[in-house]
Amino acid sequence: MAEPRFDFRSDNTGAAAPEIVAALAAANSGPAAGYGNDAWTAKVQRRFSELFEKDVTVFPVATGTAANAIALGAICPPYGAVYCSASAHVDTSECNATAFFGGGTKLVPLAGPHGKITAEALEAAIAGAGIGLSHKSQPAAVNVVQATDWGAVYGVDEIAAIGRVARKHGLRFHMDGARFGNAVARLKCKPADVTWKAGVDVMSFGATKNGGVLADAIVVFTPGLADALRYHLRRAGQVWSKMRFASSQLLAYVEDDLWLRLAGQANAAAARIAQAAEGRLLAPVEANELFVELPSTAMDALERAGFGFFRRGPSLARFVCRWDTSEEEVAALSAALREQQGAPGVRSAAQ
Amino acid sequence: MAEPRFDFRSDNTGAAAPEIVAALAAANSGPAAGYGNDAWTAKVQRRFSELFEKDVTVFPVATGTAANAIALGAICPPYGAVYCSASAHVDTSECNATAFFGGGTKLVPLAGPHGKITAEALEAAIAGAGIGLSHKSQPAAVNVVQATDWGAVYGVDEIAAIGRVARKHGLRFHMDGARFGNAVARLKCKPADVTWKAGVDVMSFGATKNGGVLADAIVVFTPGLADALRYHLRRAGQVWSKMRFASSQLLAYVEDDLWLRLAGQANAAAARIAQAAEGRLLAPVEANELFVELPSTAMDALERAGFGFFRRGPSLARFVCRWDTSEEEVAALSAALREQQGAPGVRSAAQ
Amino acid sequence: MAEPRFDFRSDNTGAAAPEIVAALAAANSGPAAGYGNDAWTAKVQRRFSELFEKDVTVFPVATGTAANAIALGAICPPYGAVYCSASAHVDTSECNATAFFGGGTKLVPLAGPHGKITAEALEAAIAGAGIGLSHKSQPAAVNVVQATDWGAVYGVDEIAAIGRVARKHGLRFHMDGARFGNAVARLKCKPADVTWKAGVDVMSFGATKNGGVLADAIVVFTPGLADALRYHLRRAGQVWSKMRFASSQLLAYVEDDLWLRLAGQANAAAARIAQAAEGRLLAPVEANELFVELPSTAMDALERAGFGFFRRGPSLARFVCRWDTSEEEVAALSAALREQQGAPGVRSAAQ
Amino acid sequence: MAEPRFDFRSDNTGAAAPEIVAALAAANSGPAAGYGNDAWTAKVQRRFSELFEKDVTVFPVATGTAANAIALGAICPPYGAVYCSASAHVDTSECNATAFFGGGTKLVPLAGPHGKITAEALEAAIAGAGIGLSHKSQPAAVNVVQATDWGAVYGVDEIAAIGRVARKHGLRFHMDGARFGNAVARLKCKPADVTWKAGVDVMSFGATKNGGVLADAIVVFTPGLADALRYHLRRAGQVWSKMRFASSQLLAYVEDDLWLRLAGQANAAAARIAQAAEGRLLAPVEANELFVELPSTAMDALERAGFGFFRRGPSLARFVCRWDTSEEEVAALSAALREQQGAPGVRSAAQ
Repeated sequence: MAEPRFDFRSDNTGAAAPEIVAALAAANSGPAAGYGNDAWTAKVQRRFSELFEKDVTVFPVATGTAANAIALGAICPPYGAVYCSASAHVDTSECNATAFFGGGTKLVPLAGPHGKITAEALEAAIAGAGIGLSHKSQPAAVNVVQATDWGAVYGVDEIAAIGRVARKHGLRFHMDGARFGNAVARLKCKPADVTWKAGVDVMSFGATKNGGVLADAIVVFTPGLADALRYHLRRAGQVWSKMRFASSQLLAYVEDDLWLRLAGQANAAAARIAQAAEGRLLAPVEANELFVELPSTAMDALERAGFGFFRRGPSLARFVCRWDTSEEEVAALSAALREQQGAPGVRSAAQ
Repeated sequence: MAEPRFDFRSDNTGAAAPEIVAALAAANSGPAAGYGNDAWTAKVQRRFSELFEKDVTVFPVATGTAANAIALGAICPPYGAVYCSASAHVDTSECNATAFFGGGTKLVPLAGPHGKITAEALEAAIAGAGIGLSHKSQPAAVNVVQATDWGAVYGVDEIAAIGRVARKHGLRFHMDGARFGNAVARLKCKPADVTWKAGVDVMSFGATKNGGVLADAIVVFTPGLADALRYHLRRAGQVWSKMRFASSQLLAYVEDDLWLRLAGQANAAAARIAQAAEGRLLAPVEANELFVELPSTAMDALERAGFGFFRRGPSLARFVCRWDTSEEEVAALSAALREQQGAPGVRSAAQ
Repeated sequence: MAEPRFDFRSDNTGAAAPEIVAALAAANSGPAAGYGNDAWTAKVQRRFSELFEKDVTVFPVATGTAANAIALGAICPPYGAVYCSASAHVDTSECNATAFFGGGTKLVPLAGPHGKITAEALEAAIAGAGIGLSHKSQPAAVNVVQATDWGAVYGVDEIAAIGRVARKHGLRFHMDGARFGNAVARLKCKPADVTWKAGVDVMSFGATKNGGVLADAIVVFTPGLADALRYHLRRAGQVWSKMRFASSQLLAYVEDDLWLRLAGQANAAAARIAQAAEGRLLAPVEANELFVELPSTAMDALERAGFGFFRRGPSLARFVCRWDTSEEEVAALSAALREQQGAPGVRSAAQ
Repeated sequence: MAEPRFDFRSDNTGAAAPEIVAALAAANSGPAAGYGNDAWTAKVQRRFSELFEKDVTVFPVATGTAANAIALGAICPPYGAVYCSASAHVDTSECNATAFFGGGTKLVPLAGPHGKITAEALEAAIAGAGIGLSHKSQPAAVNVVQATDWGAVYGVDEIAAIGRVARKHGLRFHMDGARFGNAVARLKCKPADVTWKAGVDVMSFGATKNGGVLADAIVVFTPGLADALRYHLRRAGQVWSKMRFASSQLLAYVEDDLWLRLAGQANAAAARIAQAAEGRLLAPVEANELFVELPSTAMDALERAGFGFFRRGPSLARFVCRWDTSEEEVAALSAALREQQGAPGVRSAAQ
């Protein structure tokens, strides 16, 4: 249970932002109606509608897995197929929750660069899907992860191109925004530009990895999808009776652009470390994650030196920066990676 | 969104206990491993094992519905039947989550006094269930709610009798302890006496209704049930990455018997009001809920006077006391009910 | 495995009608496209559209349970409630298949005479269902069994009254017609009168119990419901590749009113026996089933005498007549029941 | 609806063997107990136990999809992963029925030659599966298709090697034997050698594609798996009340080695055509299917000439031989393929 001295394991090992904890504590003021019928949850609807420049419906949920799988399950028929990246969190890291919540939904992984899917790959997959053939799961939705599970960030045009293909074929468009803050901080666009204006119907709006406490959210852009979701969420055990304590977290998270400041700090830390890993990066460092090719012996050495990180392969290390990654941690990892650079067995990675 | 002046709507409209909020805030101290691999979650296992005088496994979850339905789904085959009271929360108030998580589990309501089931009724139901007939859902588990959904509390002997029937027929025994604190405060027994020592295999351990913030828990008594639950919970989106913020709530909740003090306050408030409603109570007031027969016009009058409560029928009002129900609220409701007593149309209820 | 000399166990113990077996054999003529893209299955669509005086879609399926549960699962959201009789086959005899296929559908039994539900009971149940409350399964469909599981037959007006309530509240209307032939033979109405003209959206059209071999069918009246069903059925393993062998059964079944002749024979046998059981019948004998109050000793005696039937309670015997129940069987049971009439312990049943 | 003159579309377009139709018709002899409690179904258990040289339990079912998906769903926990070939029928052609019946089962496709998986690939996949990590579907079963979906046949040693890996890691071993007859006819082994003796726990025993009418079967080799399956099948609507009409098909199918004679005929036809397609075959022709590289124009020409077959890609044709594929059909296709051989644009396929 000893935590590593230099922690790059994940952004969910980070502390919560004090502002968010304070907001949760401040919500503890006398009785409030249960199950989301409180003033904080009402305010979240208004606040997020401003943020997204559109009337949206927000459902606070416990985890990103809940947000992803319940949203996808609700927008697809049970015999539907969901296109996603081969490295998408829904396919690799959620114990097939989407198939469970959807009643048999099929996840169809598509190849693409750095955890992205492309409009072209999606178009081709739909073309070969066997629409109308009852022995084939029917194309129903597309999932993108923004930022991706390889630390890359979709451009607005890339999202919009996928959105056009989705609309053309009647697919719903879901964005897994577990690191949406990191993506928007990178893109410096408006949240609307890279979501509903680009065709996204519903998103998982992540807060936990970026300074949150115990709440993420589903944000519904397309009218008509929210009503059924209410029931799906209730029977999923995802509707807190004391919802104000979740909604207050979300309010603080977006207040005064806190979320973008926090994400910006994590992104900046990653960018600085990236300079020390040049030539060995397996994906562009556009958010707060680094995927570095390192020989196994080098990874051993890092661990001995007190670094925490994940081995994603025999010669692949993942380092994640948090909003509260310290200067010291950045400096230590940068130095260690520079040192490794000269070590035998370390070569440049072909991207 | 205006909250009522005198709030008896539910115990989930109450504030959180300051101790619990403080503990959550105190957990915000630097990095900690994710998904329950943190020091707080490890401590919860030890602390609850002491509390229950047995090695137990504790899974913090977001809601009581999650605790109930995921536990029941995990301990029953998909073709299983779960016996419960006709007023059990799992059957009346969870949007059939148990059938969803169980893949088709059948809830079989049994009649019984004040939201209880009896060992006799259970025995009779199993005898008529058609064991071995494949067109019949097979007896798999029994669910009791402690305290019940009518505010009554099972005695240790009543639970143990049900436990013996369950064991005899190979059924799993699940306790919905959304108001377990209120029950134990009433019984003044040890938690072990009314759970695993009486045959309970797994329970939903409620905290939210009794001063908690955003977490309840599944407590597993019977070795061997916990392992599969880990996966069920993960794919249900019920495993927080920053679990320490949930585990710290649970630790504070049971520290220094906080949970029993809070529940005792709520029970005491209900007991005082009960005196004012004598003769019109539809169930014994053994925990923190009162079910009072009142004519519709009397309920109208209460609402006009600023009382919040739920109408559970044309002449049935439910009043719930919270740990933080104020003296003023107790006095006001007591006075109002006494006043109604003399009003025309109000008669004694036959219990 | 010895079969009883006088068999009143069920209508599914009967032989198949020779015409149906012959039609199946005749379909065995060279290659034919698979999965329902054959000439027989195309003809079934036309033939049943004539029969029902409306363009319908027919899906042959293996069993009545498949027909019921898959149809109900497909027309309800997973958080939906289906109203049915307390004795409905879907609730008592299908191992909760509806909840399984529906992903958590709740069956809500309603009281009513002889296995019927009434429009009034349905209206009242919907009124108390909690529409819009997310912790409540939402009213989605109503199921009637025609003829009922107590051998009664709904009149056209009764079905139409239920249909009006369903339409008023946006519920789908499903008919379990496992014994539809017996009902129509009794009513002497047109099939349309008691189905879509009375508001039925989709039905399970039974053949097996009435001289069929291995196929029943789902008949879809309401345009728009059939398309999704194709996928539900395929993934349920209910789409035979050699569908012609199922479709040919259904064609023969309705050819020259065979189904009504067969059902008429079974109904007539039951009616004759009913005369011998007068005063002890627990439900009107309007189709091919008799529910007779008999002391346990009388049932013992019948069994010793070679009668096969089901004990549905300590003093309740069910006798079912088949299309091929013999004169000898009818005479034997009638005589035995008349004999019992005079026996001690046999009293008139209050209906 | 016009059927092609030369039909190579599938083996399920073929006629039924007259022996099987006759047996079904012969089963139509007076009352018989329902739901498999009849003499024919009892005999199937004995007959298949002889055939497999082991006490097995046989469940007749309507389709191969039902056999596969229900068996896999029953032997895996809902959070389980099933390894299969990337071309396995369960993954490509059953509308994700396995995930539906399993409550969220994940199918994990493995690469391998000609629709096979290898023991090595399975071992590697399990090693990388993340056993014990709750965000990963847990290895639970392996599925092989015998003969494969590319017309190849596993040798006894290949199956046994997979069986050893399965056993070593506690996985269940399922064989999709939709074309098991073709495989055994090719291998000339005993059915036991390539099933339970090689580690198979449960299989889908196909009859429909090889002269059957409306029934396939699940055969359970491993004691203890059959009991739960009874309930899974009943609630899946896969238990015919007039089971004798299915069991009699299965009895005739294996009587006097009919199944092996029929499969031998189909295999022989394919083998003869294979000679005409040499150099263009994309998989070895070991059963009754041929996968031939053909330019699109050549496929157009074949269609114009009256050949029925499936295009599995822009230059990939699948031809399937039936037990009743005629001499004329074999000769015609052989001649046509030989003719194509000389045509421009036709080149040898690299296997």
